[in-house]
Amino acid sequence: MSLYTQLFYSKEVNAMFSDSESISKMLRVEAALARAQANKDLFAKEIADVISTNCNVTEIDIEQLKNAIPLGGNAAIPLVKQLTKIVARKDAEAAKYVHMGATSQDIVDTALVLQIQEFIAWANTKIDVLEKQLIALTQQHQETIMIGRTLLQHAKPTTFACKTAGWLSAITRSKQRLLAVQKRVLVVQLGGAVGNGNVAIATEIQNEFAELLGLKPSFSWHSNRDNLAEFASVLSILGGSIGKIAKDVSLLMQTEVAEVFEGAAEGKGGSSTMPHKRNPVSCAAILANTNRLPHLAATILSAMPQEHERSVGLWHSEWEVLVEIMQLTAGSIEKSISLIEGLEVDENRMLENLELTNGLIYAENLSLALARKIGKASAHELIEKACKIAIQEKKHLKEVVLEMNIEVDDLDNLLDTKNSIGLSLELVNQVLKEYEIVRFK
Amino acid sequence: MSLYTQLFYSKEVNAMFSDSESISKMLRVEAALARAQANKDLFAKEIADVISTNCNVTEIDIEQLKNAIPLGGNAAIPLVKQLTKIVARKDAEAAKYVHMGATSQDIVDTALVLQIQEFIAWANTKIDVLEKQLIALTQQHQETIMIGRTLLQHAKPTTFACKTAGWLSAITRSKQRLLAVQKRVLVVQLGGAVGNGNVAIATEIQNEFAELLGLKPSFSWHSNRDNLAEFASVLSILGGSIGKIAKDVSLLMQTEVAEVFEGAAEGKGGSSTMPHKRNPVSCAAILANTNRLPHLAATILSAMPQEHERSVGLWHSEWEVLVEIMQLTAGSIEKSISLIEGLEVDENRMLENLELTNGLIYAENLSLALARKIGKASAHELIEKACKIAIQEKKHLKEVVLEMNIEVDDLDNLLDTKNSIGLSLELVNQVLKEYEIVRFK
Amino acid sequence: MSLYTQLFYSKEVNAMFSDSESISKMLRVEAALARAQANKDLFAKEIADVISTNCNVTEIDIEQLKNAIPLGGNAAIPLVKQLTKIVARKDAEAAKYVHMGATSQDIVDTALVLQIQEFIAWANTKIDVLEKQLIALTQQHQETIMIGRTLLQHAKPTTFACKTAGWLSAITRSKQRLLAVQKRVLVVQLGGAVGNGNVAIATEIQNEFAELLGLKPSFSWHSNRDNLAEFASVLSILGGSIGKIAKDVSLLMQTEVAEVFEGAAEGKGGSSTMPHKRNPVSCAAILANTNRLPHLAATILSAMPQEHERSVGLWHSEWEVLVEIMQLTAGSIEKSISLIEGLEVDENRMLENLELTNGLIYAENLSLALARKIGKASAHELIEKACKIAIQEKKHLKEVVLEMNIEVDDLDNLLDTKNSIGLSLELVNQVLKEYEIVRFK
Amino acid sequence: MSLYTQLFYSKEVNAMFSDSESISKMLRVEAALARAQANKDLFAKEIADVISTNCNVTEIDIEQLKNAIPLGGNAAIPLVKQLTKIVARKDAEAAKYVHMGATSQDIVDTALVLQIQEFIAWANTKIDVLEKQLIALTQQHQETIMIGRTLLQHAKPTTFACKTAGWLSAITRSKQRLLAVQKRVLVVQLGGAVGNGNVAIATEIQNEFAELLGLKPSFSWHSNRDNLAEFASVLSILGGSIGKIAKDVSLLMQTEVAEVFEGAAEGKGGSSTMPHKRNPVSCAAILANTNRLPHLAATILSAMPQEHERSVGLWHSEWEVLVEIMQLTAGSIEKSISLIEGLEVDENRMLENLELTNGLIYAENLSLALARKIGKASAHELIEKACKIAIQEKKHLKEVVLEMNIEVDDLDNLLDTKNSIGLSLELVNQVLKEYEIVRFK
Repeated sequence: MSLYTQLFYSKEVNAMFSDSESISKMLRVEAALARAQANKDLFAKEIADVISTNCNVTEIDIEQLKNAIPLGGNAAIPLVKQLTKIVARKDAEAAKYVHMGATSQDIVDTALVLQIQEFIAWANTKIDVLEKQLIALTQQHQETIMIGRTLLQHAKPTTFACKTAGWLSAITRSKQRLLAVQKRVLVVQLGGAVGNGNVAIATEIQNEFAELLGLKPSFSWHSNRDNLAEFASVLSILGGSIGKIAKDVSLLMQTEVAEVFEGAAEGKGGSSTMPHKRNPVSCAAILANTNRLPHLAATILSAMPQEHERSVGLWHSEWEVLVEIMQLTAGSIEKSISLIEGLEVDENRMLENLELTNGLIYAENLSLALARKIGKASAHELIEKACKIAIQEKKHLKEVVLEMNIEVDDLDNLLDTKNSIGLSLELVNQVLKEYEIVRFK
Repeated sequence: MSLYTQLFYSKEVNAMFSDSESISKMLRVEAALARAQANKDLFAKEIADVISTNCNVTEIDIEQLKNAIPLGGNAAIPLVKQLTKIVARKDAEAAKYVHMGATSQDIVDTALVLQIQEFIAWANTKIDVLEKQLIALTQQHQETIMIGRTLLQHAKPTTFACKTAGWLSAITRSKQRLLAVQKRVLVVQLGGAVGNGNVAIATEIQNEFAELLGLKPSFSWHSNRDNLAEFASVLSILGGSIGKIAKDVSLLMQTEVAEVFEGAAEGKGGSSTMPHKRNPVSCAAILANTNRLPHLAATILSAMPQEHERSVGLWHSEWEVLVEIMQLTAGSIEKSISLIEGLEVDENRMLENLELTNGLIYAENLSLALARKIGKASAHELIEKACKIAIQEKKHLKEVVLEMNIEVDDLDNLLDTKNSIGLSLELVNQVLKEYEIVRFK
Repeated sequence: MSLYTQLFYSKEVNAMFSDSESISKMLRVEAALARAQANKDLFAKEIADVISTNCNVTEIDIEQLKNAIPLGGNAAIPLVKQLTKIVARKDAEAAKYVHMGATSQDIVDTALVLQIQEFIAWANTKIDVLEKQLIALTQQHQETIMIGRTLLQHAKPTTFACKTAGWLSAITRSKQRLLAVQKRVLVVQLGGAVGNGNVAIATEIQNEFAELLGLKPSFSWHSNRDNLAEFASVLSILGGSIGKIAKDVSLLMQTEVAEVFEGAAEGKGGSSTMPHKRNPVSCAAILANTNRLPHLAATILSAMPQEHERSVGLWHSEWEVLVEIMQLTAGSIEKSISLIEGLEVDENRMLENLELTNGLIYAENLSLALARKIGKASAHELIEKACKIAIQEKKHLKEVVLEMNIEVDDLDNLLDTKNSIGLSLELVNQVLKEYEIVRFK
Repeated sequence: MSLYTQLFYSKEVNAMFSDSESISKMLRVEAALARAQANKDLFAKEIADVISTNCNVTEIDIEQLKNAIPLGGNAAIPLVKQLTKIVARKDAEAAKYVHMGATSQDIVDTALVLQIQEFIAWANTKIDVLEKQLIALTQQHQETIMIGRTLLQHAKPTTFACKTAGWLSAITRSKQRLLAVQKRVLVVQLGGAVGNGNVAIATEIQNEFAELLGLKPSFSWHSNRDNLAEFASVLSILGGSIGKIAKDVSLLMQTEVAEVFEGAAEGKGGSSTMPHKRNPVSCAAILANTNRLPHLAATILSAMPQEHERSVGLWHSEWEVLVEIMQLTAGSIEKSISLIEGLEVDENRMLENLELTNGLIYAENLSLALARKIGKASAHELIEKACKIAIQEKKHLKEVVLEMNIEVDDLDNLLDTKNSIGLSLELVNQVLKEYEIVRFK
């Protein structure tokens, strides 16, 4: 994986999932468990002190741990063994209380939730940045007229702001989803062997444990994994909305279109054989992630029907995949921020491209105006004919309409680009208003 | 598809997606559009009357419509043509106002949203039923002791209510998700050719249009499809949680386990070659759907990076797949209701199975009790040795412990099943309380 | 599903999977079983005559059958019941021998294989057509020069034949795969209740049974489903290669590119709001299928770890999905044939587009020529600089090179399009040769 | 990823995909290119000597390379830069010929193919081992009678060899597929900038290049990726067949079934809380991989419709995913070898379990025998009734049949397990024969 670490991923987020960080999180869970048990008088605070002081990843022999994982089947089993020995060296009595009442899935799952918590905090900050960028981009281009394209064909004029307002709305909805999923996914797992608890992890201890970790308590979800499936889906959806942005930019950056560009950096986007090329490298990275995320989310969805109180395999299949989902999403978020930041918009080219069809893009304008006189169907038919002639004879639509003596009032106005962007200004304004009121006051 | 209509699907929900119903929904959208435009004085109310009166599926030549779809590429184009002709026969003037200002995607998408709305209403009612069944099942089996199983091995005793409370919690969370997604997905699509509106679909008309359809207005989402992706994910998650129930039941119904059974119906679950068999047929149907749904949800996620203002292909790939997702989810919901309704629980067999391991399932009890004396690690080691001897010599663990002179206090109590279910009673009680307070008062 | 039957599917292939056809295939299996048993003297030929004569779908009450499927869990159970009654009405003795020794999965699986056999025969014929079209298209455009595009940017000139030769090679490899999979998938299933056979389906009977159906005998594969997984993959790969063609055409058809077009048919590709539009409707349909097929193939792959001698759910999840895979693949094949048949290639526009970059596409030519003098790295660097200047100052590369006094020999030749298509002619010739020799003699 | 390296993966195969190995493979490609060009007199052999001598991974600054990848978008661009500098330090003239005529995708793709070649060689050896193990296991258990289970219910007796012969056949078919895919996937990529070649990579050079690398020449497949899609599918199918084995073993290892066990190793399969447990840890790892592989294969299938001559994103999405597929498949292969090697089969328990249903598993025997007298339908009905009584009154089926005066000849024989395994001995013998003849002579 690592060759492409910096192409598809975020350094910061990758660092959250290093072996050392993953083990640290599990140790933090063990420490919080001991602390919660002592706070609720299951044993002396001094014991919890010893345990939590020794929950230190630098003490762990990571290689030995990794070698032992295939024997136990998860990372918590050998970690608890090592931790117990480390504690025992300091205080044999305290060692008796390590991992008390918990099962290894409690540790693995809660540690994962802590990583999710850290990831979400990171993601929220970054999505805020992206959202602000998109708001600014939309504000800036409210009057930037360009062609709207449907099925990759010129359709009718619109504004660049209309396009970016669509991107923006989708990102904002993803933000809402990420907020909503937190109340379901940022919960502890502390159920003991088969999820039904025991005196060492009694309700008040679980509550204390959750509070110490900044999470909520929960009925155990050892084999009911809808929360993780929702989280995976939410990230894949966000990745898809970012992918939509990259898709549009990559298309707009085509040599023939040339309306929008990824920012150029020294040496970026060059080709080994074609010195003149300016490749959409960030778009490529984002679109690669966009192709992968749905399948990774589906892996978590496929892992849902877990057997009885702990699954044989489906649980295990979540571990690396959830991490991959977070890492790829982080990569997409980071790449999209730098994509938007460096985005170059060629407004003149946009205007030039509007002329490519010799007025055909105004056909609907004419059709609608004419419809008021002769009905929609007849108007459509008549203008369709005019369009065909314009294409065949390579004439401007206006010329053909005049030649055909089609009586449309106010022809020049109907063929004016500014009069052809529908409600773009108003609709974008409505979108922007929401942010000013809700967020910027 | 149709041979298996009744095995995997719900008749009621399948009926919502018949050709006739799908066309009716599109016509309802056209009628609402005309009505909204007239209400906002774009044209006379009489015109809207004529249009909406004629928005009647029985007038539509469905075969002709289907034949025309490959030409236009979607169902709205030929439908508008037919509708315009029908209206024109009644009132040539009114025909000019059919579909005014809208684009075919506006009709197709909004009609789909109306079907989603209808589906969600159906689903909410059914999920309420399932939830109540699971609450009742959980109440009933609070003291039904059974073995908890991890990695398909006997682990420790728990209660059947603990298992069903897990199922119940997952279903309730799916209900919350289905509620939350509504505010994002139950919105109209009314953007015109490239999504930026026009005078015929001005803001006030869009608002009126939305209100007439019981939906919310929205900035157009022609090629930003996160809402549909969320909806698909939410259903796949629900399907996964139902699949978890079916997985557990099918495992508990194994000949060797025989603790829980699908209800028998006359002729149900028989085999063509083995007259004695009682197959988990409903579980099979649910698990089949469970295998399919994640991949279908992923199809919608993969369809997200749609080009520009309307996609060439990705949009089209959503149509049948979203319907399939709703239909399979409906099948799973319906099957799970009849599964839970007919569920037979053999409490005696559960108790018998607890004895299968000659007391090994109490090993943790002993281990924990012993840990308080000699530390967790030593206790674990000692009891592990006792267990090995018990297995090798086919003796009861109690016997071995006595022979080994392991000093555990209160041995009989530790080996009593009732004392081995942890906090099952309390935890289940907490879960049930939530429902009584929130829902049943 | 049916609204879009003609958009995404093939009428001919859909007809192969009607209820009636599916039941017919199962009846053909029952008839062949009886016939094989009689041929091998298990019972009298007259009995087999009666049974096989009555294996007639018109005798079957399909509605009753469908109602009974949820009870038995598959279609064979109620079918055998109906068939037995029908035979009994004619000859009570013969009825005793219906379905003898077989299990319902034997019937369902073998009937599916017969449908696969029919589908493959259809597909082979159609792929031959597509292959020949692509050969002809490649022959025709050996000297049609166009720009090659990498990462959606103009790169270097190539020929249209080079592009279509790539399409062609992929289709031919899919043909090979479809040939190879036949020996593994066109096998009977006849294992009895748990796959280990019995006297009524002894080896010689199985061999006879296979021969009667035009299939090969096989050790039973009730729960080892690699053959079906391979078949699903092979079709999805074919669908992907067709999708690649549609992707290229849809991009080449963009208003700004306008080099290649879907054939226009009366009323095809029109828009309800934009009379001038010519939408890539066939590409849209193919690309929709292309987005769906990988997920459907993955469903079959996910269904592989089937429990014991018959799965509870995974087997059932294959039924509709395999049919859907065949139907969508058929749709893609048929659409691609009509796409290629109607394809319009604008060679002049291709030449015009070559000029869009002011000579930048010849940069590599210059770079390579220069490399021979001053080394690849220095040459690359120098030409890269020239390109940047050309872009900034909107000059032709030739002009800049002359201004910079870069000494490249034979500059005009290097900037001649015909000298810039590499080995296109030779390489395409090699590809075409394979077909002439191997196939057309 | 790395915490679980040893749980899900194979150390040997992971090592093939280290950064260092991946770069080495690319350098090997560059060396072979220079060598081939010199061998075909494009330049002096001494130049190729210098280049290939310096194609040494220890000379490469890997960190710098990784930092540069996001700029160029792939690993070959910065690698060629470094290599050129390294060569230039030794021989400025030779540096001019590095990477001549090639494009970065040529290097990345061909290097990947070399890794695939290495992987396949490894896999073939290991699959041979697995196949031999399964042959031996099947030979050994030809007469090991056990219950056959359908839909997780006891059905009829079979032999363990029948089960393992099914596993074996599937693995052998995967071996055939892996063989077949080689001729399509073990081909070089050498097309230059847009795949249409140039004088520096003329046909004879490409042939030489291919021969030097032990690969076949090929028309360039820069954006026609069916070969990789087939390879991914073939591995996912193999992974699925291994998953089927793990699924069966995990089910047979259930506490209540206890017929087959993963081999115990010191400390393996223990639980942190339940000292007595013996978890199917290898099965868990294999089943985790089995859940992931279909979605990864689908990612490659989804990546097929690549744009023009090089894709923006879809190509990039293949890189890590193909490696992950090989690595997970390798893990599954290795785990399955150790699983089969250590497999413990409890034949006595198998016999005991046969008695669990009080003779119900012989119902079909009785039904078939009775059918010869009174017809299949009546026999089925009568025996079904007897079975119901046997279940309700907890009696042995024999007893009920006698009480009901059902006249079945030779009752004792029909109820003898040895007479109830159908053609198990013969069918397994046929399977084994194939291997003796084809492979062991």
